[in-house]
Amino acid sequence: MRHTWRNVYNWGDTEKKIDKTIAHHIEHFKHLLGIEGTMRDLPLNANAHDEVKLAKRSRLNRVALRDFMRIVGSENVQVDDFSRAKHSFGKYYGDIVRMRLGKIAHPPDAVVYPGTENEIMKIVAYCNLKRIAIVPWGGGTSVTRALEAEKGGIALDLTRNYRDVISLNEIDSTVTVEAGILGPDLEKYLNDRGYTCGHFPQSFEFATVGGWLAARGAGQASTGYGRIEDLTVGFTAITPTGKIACGNYPAASVGGDIRHLIMGSEGTLGVITQVTLRIRKYNAANSVMQSYMFKSFESAVTTMRQMMQTEVYPPHFFRISDPEETEIGLGMKGKDKGIAGWFLNKLGFKKGGRSLMYAIFEGDPRQTKVGASALNRLARKNGGLSLGSYATRKWLEQRYSSAYMRDPMMDAGIRIDTLETAVHYSRLTELWNAVREYIKRDGQTLCLTHISHTYETGANLYFIFASPMLGKDELGRFEKFHRGIVETFVKHGGTLSHHHGIGRLAAHSLPKQHSPATLAAWRAVKKTLDPKGIMNPGALIF
Amino acid sequence: MRHTWRNVYNWGDTEKKIDKTIAHHIEHFKHLLGIEGTMRDLPLNANAHDEVKLAKRSRLNRVALRDFMRIVGSENVQVDDFSRAKHSFGKYYGDIVRMRLGKIAHPPDAVVYPGTENEIMKIVAYCNLKRIAIVPWGGGTSVTRALEAEKGGIALDLTRNYRDVISLNEIDSTVTVEAGILGPDLEKYLNDRGYTCGHFPQSFEFATVGGWLAARGAGQASTGYGRIEDLTVGFTAITPTGKIACGNYPAASVGGDIRHLIMGSEGTLGVITQVTLRIRKYNAANSVMQSYMFKSFESAVTTMRQMMQTEVYPPHFFRISDPEETEIGLGMKGKDKGIAGWFLNKLGFKKGGRSLMYAIFEGDPRQTKVGASALNRLARKNGGLSLGSYATRKWLEQRYSSAYMRDPMMDAGIRIDTLETAVHYSRLTELWNAVREYIKRDGQTLCLTHISHTYETGANLYFIFASPMLGKDELGRFEKFHRGIVETFVKHGGTLSHHHGIGRLAAHSLPKQHSPATLAAWRAVKKTLDPKGIMNPGALIF
Repeated sequence: MRHTWRNVYNWGDTEKKIDKTIAHHIEHFKHLLGIEGTMRDLPLNANAHDEVKLAKRSRLNRVALRDFMRIVGSENVQVDDFSRAKHSFGKYYGDIVRMRLGKIAHPPDAVVYPGTENEIMKIVAYCNLKRIAIVPWGGGTSVTRALEAEKGGIALDLTRNYRDVISLNEIDSTVTVEAGILGPDLEKYLNDRGYTCGHFPQSFEFATVGGWLAARGAGQASTGYGRIEDLTVGFTAITPTGKIACGNYPAASVGGDIRHLIMGSEGTLGVITQVTLRIRKYNAANSVMQSYMFKSFESAVTTMRQMMQTEVYPPHFFRISDPEETEIGLGMKGKDKGIAGWFLNKLGFKKGGRSLMYAIFEGDPRQTKVGASALNRLARKNGGLSLGSYATRKWLEQRYSSAYMRDPMMDAGIRIDTLETAVHYSRLTELWNAVREYIKRDGQTLCLTHISHTYETGANLYFIFASPMLGKDELGRFEKFHRGIVETFVKHGGTLSHHHGIGRLAAHSLPKQHSPATLAAWRAVKKTLDPKGIMNPGALIF
Repeated sequence: MRHTWRNVYNWGDTEKKIDKTIAHHIEHFKHLLGIEGTMRDLPLNANAHDEVKLAKRSRLNRVALRDFMRIVGSENVQVDDFSRAKHSFGKYYGDIVRMRLGKIAHPPDAVVYPGTENEIMKIVAYCNLKRIAIVPWGGGTSVTRALEAEKGGIALDLTRNYRDVISLNEIDSTVTVEAGILGPDLEKYLNDRGYTCGHFPQSFEFATVGGWLAARGAGQASTGYGRIEDLTVGFTAITPTGKIACGNYPAASVGGDIRHLIMGSEGTLGVITQVTLRIRKYNAANSVMQSYMFKSFESAVTTMRQMMQTEVYPPHFFRISDPEETEIGLGMKGKDKGIAGWFLNKLGFKKGGRSLMYAIFEGDPRQTKVGASALNRLARKNGGLSLGSYATRKWLEQRYSSAYMRDPMMDAGIRIDTLETAVHYSRLTELWNAVREYIKRDGQTLCLTHISHTYETGANLYFIFASPMLGKDELGRFEKFHRGIVETFVKHGGTLSHHHGIGRLAAHSLPKQHSPATLAAWRAVKKTLDPKGIMNPGALIF
């Protein structure tokens, strides 16, 4: 791989040609936003093919470098500019803007690739002794500024050498892995043996199991399989104060549950190492896919809510696109004109109201049948039109593709980012309306929203917003805009984040979600597990 | 109610006559343990009808008494011996022995009955200022010595005035209550409106919602409805450092989840006040009950495991009685002789091996049908014999009765207590065998075991042990015996407790389950939320 800036920030392999559908989507967005040409002359595209040079040199002294090399082997410590640049940021829009401008304020001084839990323990102990900061690294897919070496130090990257399956327990239905394993490797291992992990975040291709836990995420199939905290049986974490082993019982009533402080801690308390996850039997052939069109977002949400509250096993994947996302989705596939469009309008499924629902039932065929028929009945009751499996199949084909769209869109001068929340059903449409209104006030902005994670009491709302980049102070203005969205979430009963986490991005709003006493307790835990503040300093509230 | 010792410790109303079935069970136990007569002459029965007198006087000074009365009203502060005695202990066997001997080392100095969250806040603030200890009280059904006024102070009893339903949200499918509400009151409120809470601990009749959370319990139907931590959406807790409001989102990825430190804290961090729980639609008529006989405990457990891992919605109630419990169950109902016994033996379901399984599927009829048929098929595959709904119906009739058996059994000189754990399937029979072996070594001891809470990765094991009381040092010898059981759990991969909690009873073993760093973090939380150590001092590790 060439050591260019493009290879620092690009989502996936830069050598790979952009998929035709993605290319079509990009053209469609450009058209909607009135953007012409390729805008190759934008300053944000200038450095793409330059070799990476960092203004800030590694401050790691010779002794420390030698000590790290002694622990992990000399080939597993890197101090070159490209490696350091690649470990400077995650994948938040602002991160990419900064990288495109070559502005890396806080690169780590070195990247260290441990291969065993023992090596990780030695590194954490050493860094604690020498007060060297550690940012634990998995796939680097954070969109919340969780990955910045504010105080220099090392990026501890688990993905190179700490990525094996440790054991499979078919009696307990669990798998134990090293935290640096990537989603596809784990899933392939399990599929080959008739199982699935069931955790498919958008970042699936590049994210690690350790990262899943650290960010307290949820995958696209969380409605059926559960969020990462539901899938996690137990794990070990290496903190500066010592190793924590937790969980590893089917359930317990033994005081508090420390797992729930470490899951979501985004590297600020320790390094997650061995992880035991629940697994499920899987046979793709059993999947039942359905899709429906509704006349309004509200009637789609009502159907979803009723399904979740009906006491029938819900779909594993369960999604709704709001009217704008539905329309762009139809438009991108050329479905808003011609016979299909005419037909939908004729039946009263009108543009601006109509909303698509997607569902996939997995597992035992007797179970999927009951689920599918229960959803069918509810959809009919609420005026939904069954589209068979079509829309869901189409969605599934490109389930990980939207992340690939950002780089070419940014090349074309489109600002595109996402924010997500979760809210109880009784305030869901209120929040949806309020956020849309806020986003639309920003001028020529597209706002595509979907629900992708659903519960008995409420659901998430995932907003994708796109607009032409602003020439001057793009970053400052974007960040202000971004804060306003989070504030709108809070104002209408939404959580600061449903599955992305907090990092450094929404940390300013933590007191709006957590009580002062909660934050104090949390700081006390930090102080105890990481007394010198070496673990991902500056993230969350620490 | 007369202010006798019997009325201090008895389970339920002493005026109520003992149920005929219970009386029969007691006779059967006496028969099995070779105990004759009523043993009314035991020293443990001597004080039953005496009026309660405590050796230790209330040390609460006049000013504090007046201040409490100002906050909650004079009728809601009690300092009489009977009230203090009633708030001295929970329902652990050792507690009852101590009460029967009139040995109450640490009665509270007063019992205070608050009526609002605001009053609770005032009391906690006042006690923090004056360094007066608080033991929060619900139904007083702890079996882990969680309820002892080690440092005197007040018992804060929520059950008299803080027990209303605050609101029902049918859109979100949640109910919000005051923490002092009792199970039956909440369940009746919900049933009247077509819902159920789904949480039915053995202590259901007397326990409170706040107690459910504080002990991190699980009800008899937890396999379908979930444990209390799954049912809890959010709550407020009043700590000396301030009010904590937490949860109240369908899900969140916003750092740690403080709910999981407070659930299970057994009154050591603060007083749980308002609680929002998930509710489910309920129609008792939809229930499908099944029961099966298996030739061995192992084949019953295999069936249970396969059902939990089959990806079909499991039974809400799912239980197995081990061979000894099965036999005593059959014997108690006169089923081991005559045609039924002959028939079972003939078919190879032999005494000492045969094990009963009970299942109840609730909810949507389409769903219960699939569940019931899946279980049927698995049971058949593993050699199970369907007994229709019989055994399950019988079990359901007496689901809360076993707690009523202890007082009359103790009257007759029988020591009877329980301990419970949870373990992954791969070590379940190993642990079961080891604990039985340990218990049986104690001489003439019955050991009835069941599984009553089941998960995809493992299940709980609930041991009931009964033996003739020892004349001398009954308590000391029992406590040593008891510790040995907990140590056997730990040795074979079991948790210290699955749903009873820790209190002061198994606290000595906490370092066997939690890492030193976990305990340090936990202590730091205590120090932050309760810096003066007034909340239930001495419980857990604090």
